[in-house]
Amino acid sequence: MNRREFLASAAFGAVSATAVSKVALAALPEPMIVTSPETAPPRMPDTGRPYNPVVTLNGWTAPWRINQGVKEFHLVAEPVEREIAPGMIARLWGYNGQSPGPTIEVVEGDRVRLFVTNRLPEPTTIHWHGQRLPNGMDGVAGLNQKHIPVGKTFVYEFVARRPGTFMYHPHFDEMVQMAMGMMGFWVTHPRNRHPAISEVDRDFCFLLNAYDIDPGSVTPKINEMLDFNLWTFNSRAFPGIDSMNVRLGDRVRIRMGNLTMTNHPIHIHGHEFEVTGTDGGPVPPGARWPEVTTDIAVGQMRQVEFIADSEGDWAFHCHKSHHAMNPMGHDVPTMIGVDHRGLVGRIQNLVPDYMLMGERGMGDMKDMTMMLPEETLPMMAGHGPHGAIGMGGMFTSFKVRRDQKPGDYSDPGWYEQPPGTQAYEWTGELPEPARFASERLNRGEVPDLNRTALELQVRRPTGGGHNH
Amino acid sequence: MNRREFLASAAFGAVSATAVSKVALAALPEPMIVTSPETAPPRMPDTGRPYNPVVTLNGWTAPWRINQGVKEFHLVAEPVEREIAPGMIARLWGYNGQSPGPTIEVVEGDRVRLFVTNRLPEPTTIHWHGQRLPNGMDGVAGLNQKHIPVGKTFVYEFVARRPGTFMYHPHFDEMVQMAMGMMGFWVTHPRNRHPAISEVDRDFCFLLNAYDIDPGSVTPKINEMLDFNLWTFNSRAFPGIDSMNVRLGDRVRIRMGNLTMTNHPIHIHGHEFEVTGTDGGPVPPGARWPEVTTDIAVGQMRQVEFIADSEGDWAFHCHKSHHAMNPMGHDVPTMIGVDHRGLVGRIQNLVPDYMLMGERGMGDMKDMTMMLPEETLPMMAGHGPHGAIGMGGMFTSFKVRRDQKPGDYSDPGWYEQPPGTQAYEWTGELPEPARFASERLNRGEVPDLNRTALELQVRRPTGGGHNH
Amino acid sequence: MNRREFLASAAFGAVSATAVSKVALAALPEPMIVTSPETAPPRMPDTGRPYNPVVTLNGWTAPWRINQGVKEFHLVAEPVEREIAPGMIARLWGYNGQSPGPTIEVVEGDRVRLFVTNRLPEPTTIHWHGQRLPNGMDGVAGLNQKHIPVGKTFVYEFVARRPGTFMYHPHFDEMVQMAMGMMGFWVTHPRNRHPAISEVDRDFCFLLNAYDIDPGSVTPKINEMLDFNLWTFNSRAFPGIDSMNVRLGDRVRIRMGNLTMTNHPIHIHGHEFEVTGTDGGPVPPGARWPEVTTDIAVGQMRQVEFIADSEGDWAFHCHKSHHAMNPMGHDVPTMIGVDHRGLVGRIQNLVPDYMLMGERGMGDMKDMTMMLPEETLPMMAGHGPHGAIGMGGMFTSFKVRRDQKPGDYSDPGWYEQPPGTQAYEWTGELPEPARFASERLNRGEVPDLNRTALELQVRRPTGGGHNH
Repeated sequence: MNRREFLASAAFGAVSATAVSKVALAALPEPMIVTSPETAPPRMPDTGRPYNPVVTLNGWTAPWRINQGVKEFHLVAEPVEREIAPGMIARLWGYNGQSPGPTIEVVEGDRVRLFVTNRLPEPTTIHWHGQRLPNGMDGVAGLNQKHIPVGKTFVYEFVARRPGTFMYHPHFDEMVQMAMGMMGFWVTHPRNRHPAISEVDRDFCFLLNAYDIDPGSVTPKINEMLDFNLWTFNSRAFPGIDSMNVRLGDRVRIRMGNLTMTNHPIHIHGHEFEVTGTDGGPVPPGARWPEVTTDIAVGQMRQVEFIADSEGDWAFHCHKSHHAMNPMGHDVPTMIGVDHRGLVGRIQNLVPDYMLMGERGMGDMKDMTMMLPEETLPMMAGHGPHGAIGMGGMFTSFKVRRDQKPGDYSDPGWYEQPPGTQAYEWTGELPEPARFASERLNRGEVPDLNRTALELQVRRPTGGGHNH
Repeated sequence: MNRREFLASAAFGAVSATAVSKVALAALPEPMIVTSPETAPPRMPDTGRPYNPVVTLNGWTAPWRINQGVKEFHLVAEPVEREIAPGMIARLWGYNGQSPGPTIEVVEGDRVRLFVTNRLPEPTTIHWHGQRLPNGMDGVAGLNQKHIPVGKTFVYEFVARRPGTFMYHPHFDEMVQMAMGMMGFWVTHPRNRHPAISEVDRDFCFLLNAYDIDPGSVTPKINEMLDFNLWTFNSRAFPGIDSMNVRLGDRVRIRMGNLTMTNHPIHIHGHEFEVTGTDGGPVPPGARWPEVTTDIAVGQMRQVEFIADSEGDWAFHCHKSHHAMNPMGHDVPTMIGVDHRGLVGRIQNLVPDYMLMGERGMGDMKDMTMMLPEETLPMMAGHGPHGAIGMGGMFTSFKVRRDQKPGDYSDPGWYEQPPGTQAYEWTGELPEPARFASERLNRGEVPDLNRTALELQVRRPTGGGHNH
Repeated sequence: MNRREFLASAAFGAVSATAVSKVALAALPEPMIVTSPETAPPRMPDTGRPYNPVVTLNGWTAPWRINQGVKEFHLVAEPVEREIAPGMIARLWGYNGQSPGPTIEVVEGDRVRLFVTNRLPEPTTIHWHGQRLPNGMDGVAGLNQKHIPVGKTFVYEFVARRPGTFMYHPHFDEMVQMAMGMMGFWVTHPRNRHPAISEVDRDFCFLLNAYDIDPGSVTPKINEMLDFNLWTFNSRAFPGIDSMNVRLGDRVRIRMGNLTMTNHPIHIHGHEFEVTGTDGGPVPPGARWPEVTTDIAVGQMRQVEFIADSEGDWAFHCHKSHHAMNPMGHDVPTMIGVDHRGLVGRIQNLVPDYMLMGERGMGDMKDMTMMLPEETLPMMAGHGPHGAIGMGGMFTSFKVRRDQKPGDYSDPGWYEQPPGTQAYEWTGELPEPARFASERLNRGEVPDLNRTALELQVRRPTGGGHNH
């Protein structure tokens, strides 16, 4: 389904709710159920909206109704199917048809009422992470409330007191329910100008999550603590994650929260950012650090901001290299330096399609998917303008364009490098095949090129400078 | 032993020292040995104490004697028994009868002399983490001093130059000795007012530690690097961790240090805090960030501060969800979506008491302990006012009460939610049993409720607001 | 090879380049190939150098040539042999003969041209982490450029716009190529005085890396994600890491970057530092925190600064205790409390040299290496002035001396503790052998020493103070 089809279906049916008795639900706001993993535009009219809405990466914002001055939302906790990347469907638990659930987006001071219907096979609750609220609305089962039994609907109500970046997730059987995908984003916009909260042109949000789904399986292993094989932004893995598209000169905010089991150092190329806020509030401008990577701890939320002042397609990813890869990576034995002759023949007796993998590194595998069981996400499946992008998982691109049309932030395609700005092949003769440097030295094959280098050096005057 | 019994025994015998020759030890301060895991009041009279003493969670502060102007402490490194939670005793190594050892609490400028007696079966040393001291007092075996042989006592002496939050631990065979529980807290109060150090009403401290103790065993596996099964505050696991009790409006400081093998994002509900100091010193007020979760790296100390301005029982825990669970969690296979018929019967032939676990998540297990070996901590064993609290490990509650009596910070019991402030069940008809959202859509059962939601929406006026 | 021999060989041959056709390479700067793991002095003359050069720990700075105002470097990606510690050689991939590759050291505003020759058995690229550059020079294969095929040389060119602390590494098959050791440091010095960049007396730099090399093997397992057994600074493990030598009163900067798979909390003894800059830029002075441990996330760079104001040999290490140990640690079963009689005999039938390990902790093992396969790094092999230093991996010492001669920062040897400044043995009678504290209490052997301690206490006057 392309974007156009999605928008059409959104208006006429695919975005819809469950078949329930209309009479029975009369008092409940009807929950919007979404089954598409595409990044959706706001579902509510923008008239009178006193804020620039967030863009939930590969997600959507929950609609609401106003009932006597209270903003009412309806979240339905239920089993869902999530397309983690094109061709890979996982059976997760989520809200309103998807994992993560919809983003709740309100304004500071709003009174909010949230109906939570439990269609899971076990009890649940929702904890409104970071909110200031009455103790009885905090959602920790046993401590603050009785759990929500299967089939029941509970009501939470509080005022969104603090502007900022928040999330929601269960606080009953939470290790299991979060490992199954139950979580969602929450943004509270400031009502008035705030000295530490900037107005931005683009405001993205997503959660970091992780799954352990065996090849050929569709259900996460819910007791895994460390060794996950799917690292995702909003339950999507590259190449299934939409790019973040901005105009040259835009002020950009990216809001992220981490509900995995480990830290994620989120890294941007070509720009520096500052952390301008946490789930605890806005970071005072004088306390901010310049960074190209922010380490987001488990349970933490970070909003980073910067000016998109450099055109191009910039990588944006978790810097733990195995989090920007896809499954299979870590069960493959080291083949580097191993002579495979004989071994390959023996394996091919068992697996006729077997190809020699990894003897020369793993880069070969980027185009090779034939050995993977069905329902498995290929390890490296992204393709860019210059060949395969050997990445996966928590990876996407940040696309900055001078000519992005006003009001149109659709994907501009790949960046065309201006002449003379791209790495290029040197066209002289090539050196001999790779050998260990020490072997070359031992054979006495190496002239003293250090001296040559020194002779070639020209003393640079102090204080001058070509491009300062 | 309840609190009353403990205090009585503390005065008359259970808090006591080892049987040694009185003559031989004449020059040594007698070590206080404690065997109770209860949070103990200060053991020294408060007359003339120029500071508000810290509360060591499930621990105590070491007494001292003054010898010609020097504060003398005596730490005894030795095997100990620690009740990690009610019903689970572990054999650890610690100091003065417990793990962690007693908190050392002194005043900036104090000259401190510490006698360290080694009753372990191998050598040890103590490193005074974060202190400014002569190089020869720093405690790294081989580098700064010879190790303390078995049976010997070494003397450390230095001035507590910097006020702040510190710890002590071995620096000989440290991976093993810390995995066995050898560590303790150290607080140096400022002598005079300090612009970046607040006076607080409540000042808690504890260390984060982790153990890997097989079910049925009592001794930690000392070579584990990643896959621990007991995550503890001061060698205690929920429900064995005392609550932190404060009065509404108190300024609260919580000091923590991490001696595990991984980061711990420590999270509070219902409040925001700032990190006001590290083991490196006070954080300048202008450099502080608002947070609800602070990620404490291994070897780091953090002191967080905030005003307890919201009444209730608030969860306080590590946000890594498996650190707020207890053992067994991660060895249980995924049962979600599996049809257990037949399987259960086959297992019951082997284990007659076997119950179906996990088919519908793991929440069922919170009350089920019959399958666990003796000496094992049940996975989820806490009970709150509203049923089971399905948590364990690094979890406790932060109790804020308006009516906490002056000078009395004993446990006020569970919070009684004021009427109308607690999540409640909606009493309409219930929707049908849980099904995959996509299946419902495929059957065409779903009306377009998005449009309905939009029609219900009332435009909210900009600039207004009900509860701002 | 001692330092003297190394310097001699550096001048006359061991520092040299590959045997290639002189005609073919006419237009390429000749790459300096280094095979020694020693910390090398700058290879370029210091006349006119407008900065104090960095010291790459157990590494070196790449020479360059000036070609029409452009600084030209030549990096050769190739298999290398790295001595990880004395006696342990690993076969890695690196640049110019070593892993990490040489440090690139330039001045803000320099136009830099980097020739990258690929002598690996698979394609590669280089990403210039943290740099401001044209999108086509950013090095992400597929996204920003075609990969560099085997045997080819590519050219990157950009202006070093931001002063600071950076690194370079592949962005093709990066999980594998970084696990094999491909990375290098990059320092851009400020051209003019910068209010947030201090001039320092000593400026160290190194990368944090990790390998998983089986005992008896020389090649890293490239798919390991978590369970590494070699934790290194610049691909060196203690005792193979050079000490950092400074003069008392020096202002010191240490620049570090993390290309492992987990956070490393880097800890200094005896001093406090501030993080003064990241790969995102200088940290504003008002935003800095005092620390003794900075947690460096994966992909992050940190520069810490402090005055070396305390003489001595100070430990400097990762605070995760198993990262400051060497291999074998985590595969040894817990022996504490186990009676080995019988077991030892049975093992000795199989392994005649077997010694009883670990019954009394692991400290015994510091001098025991006979059981390790060849090519394996002994677990604990450092020796200090006071016996074995039971550390390994990410550990070295920071040596502060009053009498370090001007211009001479060679290793001053071990610190001689002034009289009265070192922990010493107390010479009274010794207590009885270690027993569980609770057992002593159960036998009623323990007098009430708490009361005694209290009686001994002398009330300290408020406001006084001996050493403030």
